[in-house]
Amino acid sequence: MIIIMEKNATAENIQAVINILNEHGFRAILHEGDVHTVIDALGDKTTLSQSRLEAMDGVNQVKLIRQPYRMASRDRKEEDTVIEFSNGVKIGGANRPVFMIGPCSVEDDYDGLLQVAQAAKEMGCQFLRGGAFKPRTSPYDFDGLGEQALKYLAQAREATGLLVVTELMDVVDLDLVCNYADVIQIGARNMQNFRLLKAVGKCKKPVILKRGPAATIQEFLLAAEHIMYNGNEQVILCERGVKSFDSAFTRNLLDISAVPVIKKHSHLPIIVDPSHGTGQRYLIEPMAKAGIIVGADGIMVEVHHNPAKALSDGKQSLSIPQFKEVFAKLNNLIDTLPLEKGKTNSFTE
Amino acid sequence: MIIIMEKNATAENIQAVINILNEHGFRAILHEGDVHTVIDALGDKTTLSQSRLEAMDGVNQVKLIRQPYRMASRDRKEEDTVIEFSNGVKIGGANRPVFMIGPCSVEDDYDGLLQVAQAAKEMGCQFLRGGAFKPRTSPYDFDGLGEQALKYLAQAREATGLLVVTELMDVVDLDLVCNYADVIQIGARNMQNFRLLKAVGKCKKPVILKRGPAATIQEFLLAAEHIMYNGNEQVILCERGVKSFDSAFTRNLLDISAVPVIKKHSHLPIIVDPSHGTGQRYLIEPMAKAGIIVGADGIMVEVHHNPAKALSDGKQSLSIPQFKEVFAKLNNLIDTLPLEKGKTNSFTE
Amino acid sequence: MIIIMEKNATAENIQAVINILNEHGFRAILHEGDVHTVIDALGDKTTLSQSRLEAMDGVNQVKLIRQPYRMASRDRKEEDTVIEFSNGVKIGGANRPVFMIGPCSVEDDYDGLLQVAQAAKEMGCQFLRGGAFKPRTSPYDFDGLGEQALKYLAQAREATGLLVVTELMDVVDLDLVCNYADVIQIGARNMQNFRLLKAVGKCKKPVILKRGPAATIQEFLLAAEHIMYNGNEQVILCERGVKSFDSAFTRNLLDISAVPVIKKHSHLPIIVDPSHGTGQRYLIEPMAKAGIIVGADGIMVEVHHNPAKALSDGKQSLSIPQFKEVFAKLNNLIDTLPLEKGKTNSFTE
Amino acid sequence: MIIIMEKNATAENIQAVINILNEHGFRAILHEGDVHTVIDALGDKTTLSQSRLEAMDGVNQVKLIRQPYRMASRDRKEEDTVIEFSNGVKIGGANRPVFMIGPCSVEDDYDGLLQVAQAAKEMGCQFLRGGAFKPRTSPYDFDGLGEQALKYLAQAREATGLLVVTELMDVVDLDLVCNYADVIQIGARNMQNFRLLKAVGKCKKPVILKRGPAATIQEFLLAAEHIMYNGNEQVILCERGVKSFDSAFTRNLLDISAVPVIKKHSHLPIIVDPSHGTGQRYLIEPMAKAGIIVGADGIMVEVHHNPAKALSDGKQSLSIPQFKEVFAKLNNLIDTLPLEKGKTNSFTE
Repeated sequence: MIIIMEKNATAENIQAVINILNEHGFRAILHEGDVHTVIDALGDKTTLSQSRLEAMDGVNQVKLIRQPYRMASRDRKEEDTVIEFSNGVKIGGANRPVFMIGPCSVEDDYDGLLQVAQAAKEMGCQFLRGGAFKPRTSPYDFDGLGEQALKYLAQAREATGLLVVTELMDVVDLDLVCNYADVIQIGARNMQNFRLLKAVGKCKKPVILKRGPAATIQEFLLAAEHIMYNGNEQVILCERGVKSFDSAFTRNLLDISAVPVIKKHSHLPIIVDPSHGTGQRYLIEPMAKAGIIVGADGIMVEVHHNPAKALSDGKQSLSIPQFKEVFAKLNNLIDTLPLEKGKTNSFTE
Repeated sequence: MIIIMEKNATAENIQAVINILNEHGFRAILHEGDVHTVIDALGDKTTLSQSRLEAMDGVNQVKLIRQPYRMASRDRKEEDTVIEFSNGVKIGGANRPVFMIGPCSVEDDYDGLLQVAQAAKEMGCQFLRGGAFKPRTSPYDFDGLGEQALKYLAQAREATGLLVVTELMDVVDLDLVCNYADVIQIGARNMQNFRLLKAVGKCKKPVILKRGPAATIQEFLLAAEHIMYNGNEQVILCERGVKSFDSAFTRNLLDISAVPVIKKHSHLPIIVDPSHGTGQRYLIEPMAKAGIIVGADGIMVEVHHNPAKALSDGKQSLSIPQFKEVFAKLNNLIDTLPLEKGKTNSFTE
Repeated sequence: MIIIMEKNATAENIQAVINILNEHGFRAILHEGDVHTVIDALGDKTTLSQSRLEAMDGVNQVKLIRQPYRMASRDRKEEDTVIEFSNGVKIGGANRPVFMIGPCSVEDDYDGLLQVAQAAKEMGCQFLRGGAFKPRTSPYDFDGLGEQALKYLAQAREATGLLVVTELMDVVDLDLVCNYADVIQIGARNMQNFRLLKAVGKCKKPVILKRGPAATIQEFLLAAEHIMYNGNEQVILCERGVKSFDSAFTRNLLDISAVPVIKKHSHLPIIVDPSHGTGQRYLIEPMAKAGIIVGADGIMVEVHHNPAKALSDGKQSLSIPQFKEVFAKLNNLIDTLPLEKGKTNSFTE
Repeated sequence: MIIIMEKNATAENIQAVINILNEHGFRAILHEGDVHTVIDALGDKTTLSQSRLEAMDGVNQVKLIRQPYRMASRDRKEEDTVIEFSNGVKIGGANRPVFMIGPCSVEDDYDGLLQVAQAAKEMGCQFLRGGAFKPRTSPYDFDGLGEQALKYLAQAREATGLLVVTELMDVVDLDLVCNYADVIQIGARNMQNFRLLKAVGKCKKPVILKRGPAATIQEFLLAAEHIMYNGNEQVILCERGVKSFDSAFTRNLLDISAVPVIKKHSHLPIIVDPSHGTGQRYLIEPMAKAGIIVGADGIMVEVHHNPAKALSDGKQSLSIPQFKEVFAKLNNLIDTLPLEKGKTNSFTE
């Protein structure tokens, strides 16, 4: 850390900072500049927080040199994390991007779900996604079928061999969801629900962590760190758009550059969700392509057998024929391009 | 609702919209414009969601005329909601703004907490606040004392008569927190943790709901609606700053205008938290004053007996002498001004 | 327009709105809903502004059905605008994306500029870009060589046959810049400098209009409308990133989805600038690729013969060897892919 | 400056940075940390820009310790800047906040303008504001009367003794506007029109500089620095709201905390514009009060003799009776409170 003192900091202020640094095992090096005194602190940041130093009298600011996440950092682990499933599917590294598709929420119509799952299988998708418990901004909206949905998902897995992704909203449902899901999803609105992060940190299933609507990349990686620190290193990040000042044409602003930024700073796999990321059906194809070309490890898209009758998010879902058309193009893109995936194929710096 | 059809919508598209409206008991009135066809739909929006209509072929957009929240809306209940405690303290309406102060997190130092509580009592504060369970962006930061903190808070209540405010982070702690707290706080990062909202909706204690860092006012009121819809109408809103493009000088951007905006559209009380809202000690006084002058029903401020040693958020905490100085000025402001609080004293429109 | 009256609007309020609509030749259709009265106004919006209606007593809100831009709108002109230069180069429609490269600002080193121009020629670029007048956030930074820079650019054009793009900052320089440039650039900070838009609207050269750092897409298209309305329909839009709440890793957030959104709503060509859009050299390649794959009509990148000595924006510039490496990949991408450019090849909706 | 090198920076990279620092007269002090090498650079930042260092190989980041503005900084000039007019009116320091009111744009109705000016005089306002040249987002909106408007303003000044504030949009109008105006306003959209800043820097009239819709406080102060650096130190800053992710209830988010933040870091006076800052008539009173209570040196409000017929921004204008009612309250607030204005009366830190 670098501690920059106020212009008018007293000798006592400076000494107090040095004392606390020493108490915590830091080496403090003092530089008296023309305006400010600056203290370099070399040591282990986990033992003394930035905010404690910031609160001290005479301290102007405290700057971190190292990123505050560790386990999620590329500095600590240079190799890409690859998550492997029992059926051989792999996410991350130099592997082909995976596809996760399905309805926003699983509805009381197993046939519809099965149609989607069969189409997914046909197009080479590896994962079936669908919500059993849905976070809904308004209490008047459909909030999910609950366990029945999980059963339908498991049934569709039996029928197709697809892996199942579903969202966990509450610690109390952890065992239930783990029983049915192959991958547990943490939704954007729960990205900083630290109890939930801790809970999935203690379970053995891979976790998809969606970026919060206003989460910085640092906050996003720190949320992943919560899961990893609690024992689960199988974290898949998911970029799904951030809030912006313009919501006239898109629901969120899908931050495509987050993919190469995160690839540079973290070894974790990252996928892109153009359905939530844009909220517009016609943008799914171009934004999925953009995600793939910048190195995403997977694409998550909402597909519904009858979007106009979907109980949630129909506007951003593809119908089955649209899905086939779009994913044929995505497969073609992946087949054609020498994708530059994984750390050994990074972009020109 | 007003449904605006695409320029090239077909007669079938239009008929399909009319059919679904009729099925749900809406009266549909058709207007063929020079460019677009527009359908006025009169009926009960809770039976048919906006998003379902938006997903239909040929629909360009669906505009709501009424706000989607109901129980929280001033349209439904014109009188200000006033929340009254057993000791006679009242929040909302034409009542004097209340003060809620205390450390960010309760630490293992009961004497320090008691000093803060006694100072609070002396300055006319009604509430002691303090975190037992702390959401922390980084897993390496102090995350609260847990039940011991709740015991300390209760002990300080015994000693001073102050009411206790503390945050609930997880449904599993609901009974525990209810046993000790007079007011349950839902933190900003949990504003859309719908399970938690539902849970506190079913309990009998007043709830402080903090605005999410990127929550629109509509999302904020819909989160309150979740609590109210589940049975608890004692909701106190709390403005605590939103994310902005500039975090060089302040941690968040405290949205002072949210107070009069919400007063116009909702009957719920609203308080202001300048500590989290700015993250800067020197801004607590001016921003608390700004909150009071625009009609806030209370001010929540972090006070610590030794901010430089606080385990969290020391930078934005007042020391006890600073607290006394600032709150003497706030009391003076309230005494001096004919505050225009409550619906009967609204600002000039 | 649709005018939604307040719940408590009086009959006089409603009549006043109908009267003003009639005065301006609108047909007003009245609907009395269960809560609000709604007035449909059919007519020519240019004769009566939305804001005037909004200011009337009893009016709750006024909603536009048609977008407020006209000449820039795809509704008015379905065919893609293609801009053609005397040397046969074309921008827009189904044409191959163009490349515009060069230093942020032209410095007093013609040889360096020529090296860049020659490399550009070699890699198949069509345009040499470079600033003669530079907008600089701080008055202490280098603000451009002025006319000498224009001369160097013209000299490099002589030597290579590249077309010259340079920024106009002030109406007084219009003739000077027109004398030297093939394309006039309006910078992001001047996107709403309406005098400048008017001036370039009256000149005959194509104009690159950069999106303002916080401009909505509607504001962006309205700025283009200013130029077109004043007589110049040769407008090339340029997405160059917007302000976001996270500037730790990128200078701006490059809004890749703006390309397909604008393609849907406007016939104007749009290019992408990943240098300013990210501020990071290592992001130029992936974000250029993302721009191309979503249908951008060109890519603008900063290239400097010695970035570490550049007087401006060196951090986001490629060196000549880096440029060659990246653009070989971009050319390869364009050659390999069946790009879906122009209106006849739109993405799956 | 503090230069933080990449983890894998070579000895050559480090030496190159030291060399360039030495060339520019900086003293470079090297610290080899456990992960990164850090270089402290002591010297005059105007001779070597941050961005040049950032572009060098092996440099991770460059952090400024001092703010990049100088003339605008409180560090350089501790005393509040007070701007005094020939009629004795003063802005800044411990002086009573001034009031600037008038129509958004001056229309072809001198009597209406005179009514507003007379009411302003009656309520103790010092300035009459009104636009002669109006920046308009759409080319189809009214863009000002031009010189005729300036004549009307001058005529109203004759009649009332009020000082005249009007916006300059283009360097070519500088002499014209200076002939009529007592204070020149630079609009928010022109905050980074550096040619305009330079031009008003060379004139002798006080300048009101409005904050850009997405300008950080640092960018805002650097824009003021442009004016000051070019010779005019009479700069009045104006907070008028910033873009946010929520525009459902307010046009902009008025950043009240910007007032005490800027007071701490700069000696320049700052006023608040709640009309543009909120876009809502009913928010003018509370937000003007909030501005005053946090120490603003003035309030600028739109007043129109007939808002429902205003050619621009009627929705955010007060009528004359509303104006009188609101400003009576503002005068009362100022009379009642011991305002803590100027550096000698700062808030509790």
